Formats: sequence, C-alpha cells, structure tokens
Amino acid sequence: MNVGHRWMNAIDIDNKLKEECGVFGIRNANNLDCANIVYGALYALQHRGEESCGIAVTNDDGTIAHKDLGLVNEVFDKVDLTRFKGNMAIGHVRYSTTGGNSRENAQPFCIKYCKGILAIAHNGNIKNSNELTEELAQQGAIFQSTSDTECLAYLFAKERLKTPSIEQAISNVVPMLKGSFSLLIMSPKKLIAVRDPMGMRPLCMGKIDDSYVFASESCALDAIGAEFIRDVEPGEMIVVSGKDMKSIRDHCGKKTATCIFEHIYFARPDSVIDGQSVHEARLMAGRLLAEQYPIDADVVVGVPDSGLIAAQGYAEYTGIRNVTGLIKNRYIGRTFILPEQSQRERFVKIKLNALSASIKGKRVILIDDSIVRGTTSTRIVNLIRSAGAKEVHLMVSAPKFLNPCYYGTDVPSSDHLIATNRTVEEIAKIIGVDSLHFLSLASVEKIAPNSKTNFCHACFSGAYPENN
Amino acid sequence: MNVGHRWMNAIDIDNKLKEECGVFGIRNANNLDCANIVYGALYALQHRGEESCGIAVTNDDGTIAHKDLGLVNEVFDKVDLTRFKGNMAIGHVRYSTTGGNSRENAQPFCIKYCKGILAIAHNGNIKNSNELTEELAQQGAIFQSTSDTECLAYLFAKERLKTPSIEQAISNVVPMLKGSFSLLIMSPKKLIAVRDPMGMRPLCMGKIDDSYVFASESCALDAIGAEFIRDVEPGEMIVVSGKDMKSIRDHCGKKTATCIFEHIYFARPDSVIDGQSVHEARLMAGRLLAEQYPIDADVVVGVPDSGLIAAQGYAEYTGIRNVTGLIKNRYIGRTFILPEQSQRERFVKIKLNALSASIKGKRVILIDDSIVRGTTSTRIVNLIRSAGAKEVHLMVSAPKFLNPCYYGTDVPSSDHLIATNRTVEEIAKIIGVDSLHFLSLASVEKIAPNSKTNFCHACFSGAYPENN
Amino acid sequence: MNVGHRWMNAIDIDNKLKEECGVFGIRNANNLDCANIVYGALYALQHRGEESCGIAVTNDDGTIAHKDLGLVNEVFDKVDLTRFKGNMAIGHVRYSTTGGNSRENAQPFCIKYCKGILAIAHNGNIKNSNELTEELAQQGAIFQSTSDTECLAYLFAKERLKTPSIEQAISNVVPMLKGSFSLLIMSPKKLIAVRDPMGMRPLCMGKIDDSYVFASESCALDAIGAEFIRDVEPGEMIVVSGKDMKSIRDHCGKKTATCIFEHIYFARPDSVIDGQSVHEARLMAGRLLAEQYPIDADVVVGVPDSGLIAAQGYAEYTGIRNVTGLIKNRYIGRTFILPEQSQRERFVKIKLNALSASIKGKRVILIDDSIVRGTTSTRIVNLIRSAGAKEVHLMVSAPKFLNPCYYGTDVPSSDHLIATNRTVEEIAKIIGVDSLHFLSLASVEKIAPNSKTNFCHACFSGAYPENN
Amino acid sequence: MNVGHRWMNAIDIDNKLKEECGVFGIRNANNLDCANIVYGALYALQHRGEESCGIAVTNDDGTIAHKDLGLVNEVFDKVDLTRFKGNMAIGHVRYSTTGGNSRENAQPFCIKYCKGILAIAHNGNIKNSNELTEELAQQGAIFQSTSDTECLAYLFAKERLKTPSIEQAISNVVPMLKGSFSLLIMSPKKLIAVRDPMGMRPLCMGKIDDSYVFASESCALDAIGAEFIRDVEPGEMIVVSGKDMKSIRDHCGKKTATCIFEHIYFARPDSVIDGQSVHEARLMAGRLLAEQYPIDADVVVGVPDSGLIAAQGYAEYTGIRNVTGLIKNRYIGRTFILPEQSQRERFVKIKLNALSASIKGKRVILIDDSIVRGTTSTRIVNLIRSAGAKEVHLMVSAPKFLNPCYYGTDVPSSDHLIATNRTVEEIAKIIGVDSLHFLSLASVEKIAPNSKTNFCHACFSGAYPENN
Repeated sequence: MNVGHRWMNAIDIDNKLKEECGVFGIRNANNLDCANIVYGALYALQHRGEESCGIAVTNDDGTIAHKDLGLVNEVFDKVDLTRFKGNMAIGHVRYSTTGGNSRENAQPFCIKYCKGILAIAHNGNIKNSNELTEELAQQGAIFQSTSDTECLAYLFAKERLKTPSIEQAISNVVPMLKGSFSLLIMSPKKLIAVRDPMGMRPLCMGKIDDSYVFASESCALDAIGAEFIRDVEPGEMIVVSGKDMKSIRDHCGKKTATCIFEHIYFARPDSVIDGQSVHEARLMAGRLLAEQYPIDADVVVGVPDSGLIAAQGYAEYTGIRNVTGLIKNRYIGRTFILPEQSQRERFVKIKLNALSASIKGKRVILIDDSIVRGTTSTRIVNLIRSAGAKEVHLMVSAPKFLNPCYYGTDVPSSDHLIATNRTVEEIAKIIGVDSLHFLSLASVEKIAPNSKTNFCHACFSGAYPENN
Repeated sequence: MNVGHRWMNAIDIDNKLKEECGVFGIRNANNLDCANIVYGALYALQHRGEESCGIAVTNDDGTIAHKDLGLVNEVFDKVDLTRFKGNMAIGHVRYSTTGGNSRENAQPFCIKYCKGILAIAHNGNIKNSNELTEELAQQGAIFQSTSDTECLAYLFAKERLKTPSIEQAISNVVPMLKGSFSLLIMSPKKLIAVRDPMGMRPLCMGKIDDSYVFASESCALDAIGAEFIRDVEPGEMIVVSGKDMKSIRDHCGKKTATCIFEHIYFARPDSVIDGQSVHEARLMAGRLLAEQYPIDADVVVGVPDSGLIAAQGYAEYTGIRNVTGLIKNRYIGRTFILPEQSQRERFVKIKLNALSASIKGKRVILIDDSIVRGTTSTRIVNLIRSAGAKEVHLMVSAPKFLNPCYYGTDVPSSDHLIATNRTVEEIAKIIGVDSLHFLSLASVEKIAPNSKTNFCHACFSGAYPENN
Repeated sequence: MNVGHRWMNAIDIDNKLKEECGVFGIRNANNLDCANIVYGALYALQHRGEESCGIAVTNDDGTIAHKDLGLVNEVFDKVDLTRFKGNMAIGHVRYSTTGGNSRENAQPFCIKYCKGILAIAHNGNIKNSNELTEELAQQGAIFQSTSDTECLAYLFAKERLKTPSIEQAISNVVPMLKGSFSLLIMSPKKLIAVRDPMGMRPLCMGKIDDSYVFASESCALDAIGAEFIRDVEPGEMIVVSGKDMKSIRDHCGKKTATCIFEHIYFARPDSVIDGQSVHEARLMAGRLLAEQYPIDADVVVGVPDSGLIAAQGYAEYTGIRNVTGLIKNRYIGRTFILPEQSQRERFVKIKLNALSASIKGKRVILIDDSIVRGTTSTRIVNLIRSAGAKEVHLMVSAPKFLNPCYYGTDVPSSDHLIATNRTVEEIAKIIGVDSLHFLSLASVEKIAPNSKTNFCHACFSGAYPENN
Repeated sequence: MNVGHRWMNAIDIDNKLKEECGVFGIRNANNLDCANIVYGALYALQHRGEESCGIAVTNDDGTIAHKDLGLVNEVFDKVDLTRFKGNMAIGHVRYSTTGGNSRENAQPFCIKYCKGILAIAHNGNIKNSNELTEELAQQGAIFQSTSDTECLAYLFAKERLKTPSIEQAISNVVPMLKGSFSLLIMSPKKLIAVRDPMGMRPLCMGKIDDSYVFASESCALDAIGAEFIRDVEPGEMIVVSGKDMKSIRDHCGKKTATCIFEHIYFARPDSVIDGQSVHEARLMAGRLLAEQYPIDADVVVGVPDSGLIAAQGYAEYTGIRNVTGLIKNRYIGRTFILPEQSQRERFVKIKLNALSASIKGKRVILIDDSIVRGTTSTRIVNLIRSAGAKEVHLMVSAPKFLNPCYYGTDVPSSDHLIATNRTVEEIAKIIGVDSLHFLSLASVEKIAPNSKTNFCHACFSGAYPENN
C-alpha cells in the first residue's frame, strides 16, 4: 500500500461520477516504438481514470512494466520509455471501483503462470468477483491486491491447465463472469482483446501501418495517428499474433447493453462508439430537452465542460442565445488545498467563476449532464444567481439517477442519490432553481440513434441487464 | 541556476504568446490567513505566468518567502502555508521576459536595505533596465539575477537614502523608468501598489472585510471572495498601512496606453479591466470580424480556448451555426515528451483533435486570436482539412503582428513574425487556408469601448507610446 | 517494475559480499507505537539489506503496509508512521538474492487468503523454490514477484485449508523446504516466528514491557530499548498471541549449521548470536591469524570497517602496534557517480584514503575479512603501497572462498572467485602483497567457541549441510 | 527562503560543534572535466559542511552554477554535470554560521558587477560584517541573503571601480576585514585564492597535470588524485590565470593564529595542515592526556569517530588495552525521526550502542574530543555504565570551552557552555563520571609541533587574536 497524500482536505469541487478505466494495446508488426505509442494513447484516455496508470511491454525475455498512482505525466515523468523495448504493449488508466486507491491495484496486472507471462488491462467490473475470489481462496489461492483483475488472472491460469491455448482458456472463463469487461491481454506471443457479451464498455480496433491497436475509445486512435478499423463486438475475442488477426465469436449474439452514460458524460466528444458519435449524442440530448421542455428564457448556459455541447443543442433547437456563463480554472488539479473549513466558503469561485456580463438580469437556462448528490448543482446555481441571473432553469441531459451501478462506474447507492424518494419539485427546491427538468427515461436511448448496440440504463430505470 | 528538465524535446504545441507575470497582494487588517489567500489568488492568475511563482509574507520579524520554478500547485505542493504568518503578503506568477528561466529570477524579490525589508512583485518590463543596471554597476552595485526587478530594488533603496519615506522614494524613481510596471511592494509596515503612468499593465484593488487586496486581474478577486473596488489608475500609487489607504497621484494624467492584447488574449474572460469586460471585448472582436468579412460558410469553429468567444460573436452576428470543431486534451501539460522527431508527426492530434461530425463536408470559418510564427495555425488548418472540411476561412481577432513588444510580452522580433513583409494572400497560402482575414488596425480599439484607458497597439501599428 | 537509477556508472568500491535480509517484528501488548518501533529497529538492521525495506502493521481492519526500494530513511522519509496504528507489526530490509531488485519483491509480503490476511518477512533463501513454484503453477497458481517468499505464502495458504490453525499449516510446510529461513509471519491475530531446523540464519526474541519482539540480530533489540530474552532455536516456532507466547519444537533437534560468515562479516559487532558475541569472534579471528602467521612487521592496519576488530586481535596477540592506516569517507553512498571510465582512476582515493603518517616506511600487516574477486583487495594494497609502505602482508580473517552459497548470501559461483584453482602464492601475486595468509579451514569454527549452534562453512569447505 | 523539513523532532544525537565550510577550486589548463573534479572533491570536504553545497563553473559565456540545501549526493543527484563545461570551477560545502540555513545562503555566491562575473566560495567568518553591511546599506546597497559573503562581494565590486585589477581590489579590501577567511574567487579569467593574514582557516594548493587546484584540506587533493604543492600562506593571495600562478604577499607576515580545533576535531585525520598531520596531532593529544593523567584502569574506549585516535595515543602511552566499546550506526542521518518525546528515551542506543563484551566489569577510560553543553557526554556515559562498566573516567582531548568563537565555528556563547562557572568536579558530577580530565591549556599547542603557523585557542583561553 502506498501511503500518500498529506493534504486531507483537498476540495473536490467536481463531485462528478467517475468512469472506471481506459485500456490501450498494440501488437507491433512494424518496429514501432510500442511503449511511446501507448504513452501517447493514455493521454487521450486519461479522462477515463486519473488515479493510477501503467504500461507493460512484452519482449522475448518477458514483461517489463511501470505503473504507479498518478496521472500519466506524473507517473512517466522520470521514466525513460526508450528502454522499454518489445513487440507488444498494453496500457491502463484507472479510477478505483473494485479495489481501493492503492499502488497494488494499478494496472496492467502482470503475472507469471504455468505458461509464462500474462499481462492484463481491464475496463469494467466483475460483479461476482467476491464469490469467485472466495472460491479460489478455498482452493488455496492468495491475493495481493483488492482488484477484481487478480481474480481474472487466476481464472485464466487455472483454466489454461485444462485447455490447449490461452484464447480457449479465456473463452472458457467468460461464461463464469457476471458484469462488464473490456480486456486487453498479453500472453508471451499474442495480444488478445475481449469485450463482454453485452458490450457494456466500449472497445475498438485500429491499425498503424500493419500493427493492430485496441483502445477504449476511438479518440485514442486519433491521438496516435492510427486508422479506425471497427469496434470489437460484444462477446467477441480478437487474437493478434504477429501481423495476423483472428476473431472468435463464441460469446457473440446475446442481447447487448452498452452503458448509455458513456455518451452522456464519460466518453470524449470526439470519440465514436459502436457507430455513434458522442458529440452528436450530446447535441441530440440538448435537442430532446428543448423539445420536451421549451422554456421562455434569455440565454442558455452550459456547465463546463460536459454540459456545453448539450447546451448548444438546446440553444440551436430553441433559438435562444447560447452564452459563455461559467469560466473554469484549468489549473486547479487534484492537489488544491485549503487548510481550514472556514476558508472553503471564501474560495467558492476559485474553480468555477460566473460571467456577470453574460448573465446579469437574464433568465438563464442552465444545462448540465447529471445530478448525483446535488451539492455541486446547488453551488453552481448559487454562482449563477449571485452573478445576477433573474431566473435559473436547470435542464439535465440525463434522467434521474435512482439506482446504483454494478458495471464499472461509481453511481452510488440509492441513499446518496438526491433523486431517491424525491419529486422533481422537491429537488428543484433543494438546489434552488426556478424549474428543473430531466431528460425523460423514454427518450434516453434516442440520443444515440446510430449505435449498433442497445443500451444499459439501469442506473435510471432499474432494469438491470438480464442474468447479469 | 537551476539545472533541470531532462526532457529536452517536449513539444510546444501551443506556440502562443506569453503574458509575462501576474501579481497579487493583501494588507491584512482582519486576522485573515494571508498566505493562503495569496495562494488561492495565484491559481486564478496562473495563466499570466506558468514558469515560476512565489509568495512572501511580512510580519514583525521580517519576511518569509517561498518561490521556485513550477506551477502554483507544484511549488506549494509540500509547503505548509499555515506556517507563513504575517500581516501582509504578496505573490507572483511569472514567465520569463527580461531574465532567463532560472530560480534566481523567481519573485517576489526580497531584500534587506537600509530601512529593513523590501519585497517586490513586478508585472511588466523596464525597457531601460540595461542602462539603469549599467549605471548602478558603475557605482559598485552587484547583481545576482538577470531580472529587471533587482534593478528596481536598487533604485528604491538608493532613493530612500535621500527621502523621508519609501513611497516618496518610489515616486522619485518612477520618472527614471521607461516601460511598463504594475508593482506590489511590501515595506516593513506598508503595502504599496504602483501602476506605470501609461497603465500598460492592468492592476485593480479590492477588499475582503477591511483588508485591502490588489490583483493583476479582477478574476483573482472573485476567486478569493473579495469585493472589487476599482482599478489602480495609470500613474497612481496606493499606500495601505493597517486599515488606511492613501492614493498618491503625482504621476497620473499622462496619455494612457494599456496593452490591447490583454483583451484579445492574455486576460481571463471573467476579468474586467479598466471598466471593460474581457469577455465582451472578445465577443465584439468576433462581431467586428463578421461585419468586416461576411463570408458565406456553413459553420463557425473557434480555436480553443481563446478563439471560442470571438467565434460566438462571429456566429451570432452572421447567423452561421457555431459548432464545436476542435477538442483540446486538458491533460497535456508542459511535460509531454516525444523521444524522437520521427514520432512527432504521429502525435499531431494528441493535443487538439478535430470533430469530423461537425466539420465534414462543411465550409468552415475558423476563428483564432493571433498568428505569430504561423506554425500552429498551419497545423490546425491541416487538422480541420483532414477531418473533411470543404473550405477553411481563417479569421484572426487581432491585426497582423508586425513589431516586437518592449512592454512585457514576448512578441518576437520582426524576422520571426510570419506577417513581416508578407501580404495576407501570401500568409494564407503558407497556412493553407482558402481565405485569411485579420481584424483591421482601425477597429482594434473598438473591441473595448468601455475601457477608461486608451490602448497600446504598437505590436500591430508600430506606434510605440511616446517617449517610452 | 520500477525503472530507476539514471546513473549507470556508479562505482562500487565496496565489492563486498551481501547479507540478504533482516527482519523485525512486535506483538503489541502495551499500547506501544508499533510502527515506529519497527522503524527504529530497521535502522539497526540496515546493514543486512540496503536495497529495499518495508513495514506492515496489522489491526482489526486488516494490514497496512508501506515498502519501496531505498534505505529506511529514504523509503519512510515522507511517510507519517503515526497513521499506522495496530497491534502487531513486522519490518524487513533486503538485498536481492532470489528475485531481482524490483519494487514487487520488497517485503513484508502481504496477502489475503482463505482465513484473512497474512504478512511475511523472510531472511534466508529457499533453495528448492523453483521446483515448488513450478509445482504450484501446475496447479494454477500465479506469481506476481520473483521472490521465493511468494512461494512460501502459497504453501502456507494451501496447507491451511487442511489444518485447523496457521501454526500447524506452517509446521506442515517446513519439511517441504530446503534452504534457510528466519521468518516472521502475521496472521490476523498471531505473530509467528520460525527459524529453519538448521538455524542457518540468526533470529532472537526480546521483550519491551509485556510485548514480545523478534529480530535478526540482538543489536536491533538494543536500538529500541528492548530486553534480550533468548535466541529462537533452530527448528523452533514461537507463536505470540496477545501477551501469551507458545513454543513449538516439532522440527528442533536436527544437526545445526549457522552461517559462520555472520560472525566474520555480516552481523554487527554489538550483536550476540546464539550465545556468541560477534565482536569477540572477530577479535578471536585476529588472534588465530596471529597464532598461525606470526610475521615480523612494524604496524597492523585493519581495513575499515569490518577488518578493524580482527586487526585489534592480531595486534594484541603479537604486540605489534595497531594503527589507523586507512580513512573511509562516510558520505560516499550508493549514488556516487563518475561520468566516464577515464575518470575512475583519478578518484581511486575518494572512498578510502591511506594515512601516510602511519604507514610510510613501515612493514604493514593488513587485515581484511575476505577476498572475493580480488579487485577490491588489489586496490587497497595499491593505496597502502603508494602511501609508502615498505612491505604489505595481507591476513584474511576467513578461509578461501571456493564454493557458492545457496543459503541467502551472494557468494558467487566458483568462476568468479579469485581463489578457485589458484594457490595462495598466485593470489598474492595478483593482489600485489609480499605475503598472503588465510585463516585455516580447521580453525574457522574456533572463532565462535561460545555458540550454541554448529556452523555452515560450505562456501569455504564445500561441505554443504546434509540433505539441504 | 526554502521551507522545508516537515519533521521537526529529529533527534540530534551528535550535539557536536560544527565547522562552517569547505572550499575547492580548479583552474583548468588540461581540458579536464572541471565540474566533476569539484564534485569529487566536495565529497572529501563534506564533513566541513552538511547543510548546503554548490558548484559554479566559468566559461566564456559566463558562470553556470547549481547549489541547494542538502548533502553533495542529494544536491547533485539529478544534475548532469557533464553539461557544466568550463575552464574554471569552484565548489563549496556549508554549515550556517553567519546567515541562517536557507537556500539563498548556499554558495558559491555568483554575481555580475561592472567587470563581468564574480563567483566566491568562502570558508570563515567576517567578524565585522554587520558594520560593513550597515555601511554599504547606507550607501544604497541591497542584500538578498544573510551571508557575510554577499558583503564581501559588494566590497570587491566597489573597490574594483577604483583599481585596475580584481586582485588589487581584493587586496585593498583585506585590511577592512576582521575575522577569518579562506576565499576562492573566480573572475572572468582568473582563479584567486586568498587566506586571511592570520591564517585562521586552512587552505592549500595542489596540481593535477598542469592545472592548479585549491582546497580547504589536503584530503580533497588525495580524493581527486591531485598532487599536494604547498599551503597557501596566511595573508597570501594566489592568482592563477591559464597555467600561470602568481603569489601576492602584501598581507603576509602578521602574527598567525590558525584554529587549533581543526586539529582536535574539525579536519579529517588524513589531512595535513600547515605541515602538521591531523592524525598525528590527535595521537599526540592522547599521549599528552596520558602523561598528564595516568589513571589506573582496564580499558581505553574512544568515542567514535573523532575520539578514536586520541584513544589510541592514550592506550599506547599507558599500555592500557584499547578496545572497541561503542558502535556507531552509520545509517542514522539527518532525517531520523521520532514522533514523540516519550519515544526518545526508548531509542537512546539507536545511534550509538555500547559493547558489553568489551566493557562489562571494567574500569573504563573514555576519550572524547570536547564537551560543549554536556548532554551528549552524559548520554554516552550512561550507555557505558549500563553496559556494565565499573568505573568511567572521561578524558577530553581539548581544554574546557569557555568562550564563544567569532571565526567560523559554532562554539556557543558562554551561558550555553557547561564549563562556564563550573569546576571540573562539578562538571564530572553532572556528567556522571568517576573522574574528568581536560587537556591543559598550556599543552594544547603541543599537539601540533610541526605546524608552521601559530594557533588561535580563544575558545579555551579567551585570548582572541590581537585586533581581530
């Protein structure tokens, strides 16, 4: 366990939901500098996990890896990546979901087993990992981390004893797993990409020259100059060995359930997931809000950064002027510290400041992507009001959060959700807005009409994917 | 000299002009935690200087200071500011203009002289510092830094020998100085704010309870919860002693010449400078461009972050749709490294990615705030084109840079400016746009109609402020 | 894997053998500050392992640990140990023997298994760990480190499934192990100390108030103000639970074989091992050399630090004057760097300088504890000669190294040992001495007459302990 | 000011006097790697100053320097010295005497003045620096550090205006100075060494090939493989320009007064100062104690490290057996931390442990080099007693400290000295010894019969050097 941050009282002004992880991998067929390509790609996936990161490179001698708590630029600040030579590499960025925020849980997860090395990068959450772990422990297994990925490694290793190939072993394990997983796995010779049968988390494939690459989001392909090929399909396993690519589709064909919140908030707007542009989905969410709640107002203000695109959509549909009403300080990172509670009130505008010039005397339509606990929304509404807004109408480009997520995001349990057991009017009163409107549950799937997959919206609807 | 960064080959994708410095000070009359207030304010001024920063606190025993190379969150990461007790404090963020990028040049600049301590934070550039320094050296002075602020300290110290008060000494020195200066000075008992007679750099005054504060920009007052009182006037000196404030206006009344580029690019949009909202000035720049160059196109795209507001202005005026066309990676900081030149081409989209969904097949009006060397513009235009734009028309919300700046920004000498000796058409060809338009010199001052001061636009016009 | 030291060309002037590890543990019965006591004790054991260190503390919630590459003062430099609350703690310092020099191999080794947590600190080397690891892998085990301690943890966990207690499980595992081990193990409730049946590595027990403590060497008990109780006997397991101590002697009674090189070099002179003072053993080694090789000379010079005591013994026995002839620079640590090979010759006296005043014109008897490769000895002899010695006679307080060690030290394989296939005269010629003398094999055990255990001297004699 | 160490409660078990500084310089005539030679030399001088260090290199472009708080291996840990190219270099290690422990006070002190650069490394203390500083301030000087070296720089700069050469300027300044100074100064072309007229601090000259080098102690010449030439004489100035060396002796010929405590404690035993071996001086001090106080006892024990040689001298003279009675932990550096006062008592043996085997039941003669406040002595005597000594007789190889030092060591003011107003018997009682003996004042100079200079012993005698 790493013992860390001395500053206990950092303010978390961004009380946002967190995506759990991002993964990237490359099977080098072109004498490329693997480790540096992964390094660049992780920058493009950093929004999917800011707590820890790592890169593992495989060559003929085994695996070398570097991983630690911190952002990509912190963890690799003093690492000479040119020394990481190899013909395959995977990388990972991480928030903690299963497993606490400790160095042991940083990925890629690298092991030796009966057939040599295995390195795993995992985005998702194995819902039944406690049961699986308990079962393994009863057979004598020992666990050094609290991450569900260690459980996966065990299962692959055990299954490998009974099967002739690592891909068969992985395929055998898939039906044992409940939950979500987009996995990148390096065996001594192969790079293997696996997406869970429901396709809950995104995963796509690209190419640089003749080298295959995989990424959680297509924006990472752009970042490193790779060409987008296609999404890994729900249930599909892709095995790359040298320049050859093989698709194994044993677990394809189930009902799919990709996380809709990837489109609403998690993913980068320049990504395309399963055929759907994230940017277009957010614009559409704004338009749907406008259609459902056409309010008479003077200006539309998006909450930066994720509310800005939906605000554009709302403004375009209604013709109300879209203005910059909130300015975000880009330098306030995770280390901003305030020594005493008494001072916090003073610094309320340090991360987000309202632009009086745009707002004063105006009836404001404020667009945000979600309300979780309600504290952040309350603070923002106060800012807007103290900058002189005459009315504040808050539009949320998602339905009400009513249920916890078991598939890799940190939507909390119901008792921490402001929407639990409260009417919209009650929430509006708490937050301090003149009116409050959520995207209707019925229309949430309409924001992504081009997606080839269906969606999981259990956090809104409670309709958890069947048998999962 | 600090020897430092191992990574020599960091890419500087943002080849932008740099503001030189930001200052903040507080004369504590209310038992406030001075050092922490300065710390918070420096976050809000960080955009004015990312190379080094520092805080100095004065109490009855003298001055304690901490300063180093790095961002505010880096330099003060491991510093327990609660140990910095005092009744006055000043802070500084810095880019290097005069004086190289070394630890010795970090400010506040703290000295002892015949009357005790003196701490100085300086925003601006003393144009005749070489002459002044040489003269001082000929009298036996020694210099430990390459900063013009050390020269100021000497002049104040020497003049103080002949005058009964530090404010009189400073006042006597002002006429010796050519160039720009917004200064905060702590003597053992007084906090003194000085703005050069032309008001070239901004400086404003606020209050927290009964404590006076000064800041380069009003956004820093917002950040710490202070009330804006008024701008320090060009040529004015304000002396705060305990709760008392005294204005000395010996050097007021000259022709004023505030840097117009503060409004175009340097300042934060939520700041108000000399009565003019920066946000409004940028909107106006966009509107003026629209008025001057009404081009038939499908979408308007602002270059993030500083081109976004002008793009709004342009779009509103013309009715052309304003879209998000470029996505900026917020995690690429100063430490992003690329080990070899050959790889740079690969990573061209890592910092800025184009949104095909918004641009493809469209005639794009691209709005940026300036073109210096042209390399960044060329790269951005390429991005837009490779995302499928049919036409690209670049509008620049400033006139052509033709002349170096001697007043505290790093507009380079003419031979590095792409606009030198080239027609607009020639530049357009180099950059690769279908058409290129600059805000006309005649209208540059119109972007800030509410400003109480006149403007310096020498970098565009060559009309350097008289005798300065 | 941690990627680390930029400086590849550090000189290793001390080309000495390395002890592998040191361990310390406390079962807190007195509300002591466990973690800080371990921290202090590790300073006293640092000579047993300078590459990595760690502390693990167990409380009702589980185990918290901090470990990393570096010396104790480096690894715990920024760690607030007061936050490590618990009722048991173990600590470890380490050189790499099995397992490379990586962060994953740092100890204590902390796992979860079917019965909760298990933390292990290990001094020694499991000779058959490759076979055991292979066998476990064939049952599906995965390995995250290259340390033999991970193998031990697996064996304990697997055996625990079949037995009612952890101590029984450990006891069952002991006969499977070949090699040396002094182990400290924390289960959720118990602190368990185990010494291998041959007692190859030292381990002793002490008490602070009512709290039992265990340490590799008694000097660690002194350092923290604990009272020495007794050595843990070869083959003994001691289980401490609350204030109760239970001795399990299932594996006692075998032929013992404690490493004699602990007395010659590894251990601190203020330690007492199995009843024998290390300091007295070194004095005796000097006396035995004097008895065996009474040479006519002017002065006796010990090579600091470990040759100094034997030099005293030699001088006292012969009556020849014991002088300080070599001065060691205490500041040259592991980070001293020399940029080019060409410069190394220049800096030959930087770590060790000869005192002309003591040596010039003298016939010198030089006493050192061992010759491994011969390079260090050659360098020292040159120093002595260039300071003016007329004759140099080197006495080594150990027999010739002829065989590798499999029990936890880094005596290298025969082809790196200067003594292999060379006569004493040949070695003397290489090293450049007038005469060279080794302690005779027959007398090596005589240096420690008070030891309750017998000795392993396989590195000298080739007589490896039977069946081990 | 650097704000630093979080750990306030480090124990200072070594409550020893501190030498103030060490200097080293090289005028490169042979294409040597200047910076690395200085780096190596500073390791050999580290005992003269552990708080900060620095290296400055001069080339045709000016001076580059790196300096900071910390040991040589800490400060230069991450600095690539191969980038410090030049034809001259000076280095410095420092304890704080005048001037607090801050980064601003680290040396070499580098400035620009009317004639270009000037870099200064200073060992000693300018007694009248307050007066000189005040005078300079009254002429308009400003001071950025609290070091007396800044004052020197000013004086040289001011004097240079009136004189044709820097050496003449320095020579003119010498008579203004009271106190001690061994100075190395780099002007753009010359390396200048100056020793104060009384020769209070050591300074010697050597050569590597054709390059002249200067060092505080000759051990630094050995460390880098330089040949010792001669001492710089009291009052002498040596100017090296290219390969040429010029001696200026304007201030030679005064009564000399070298610090006798250099021989007793400060200097390294392998140094030779003004013709006197430091090692021999310490042996002689032990012999003189034996002659003056021939006590009947069983063993002689030196307090490591500095008491060990005097103990040898005492033992040889009396024939009493010299034993190792105290073992020092080499790993306890400046960062050892103890979180609470209550724990300190527990860790009393962590830095120094007594060897019962040598001491138990014995009448012990303990030899140390000084008693300042008495606390350290008391602690050591307790250790010796608790290890079973029957009697403890403490011999101090120096007279009683009765007076503060103004010449560059930190002998404190009289009210902190245990010897002030106390008889030897009273001190013995406080410290807890059976008898206590100090080297007589009359014989203190006899320890260094070969010295070409006379001695200052004002701290013992109160006889401060005339007019200084």
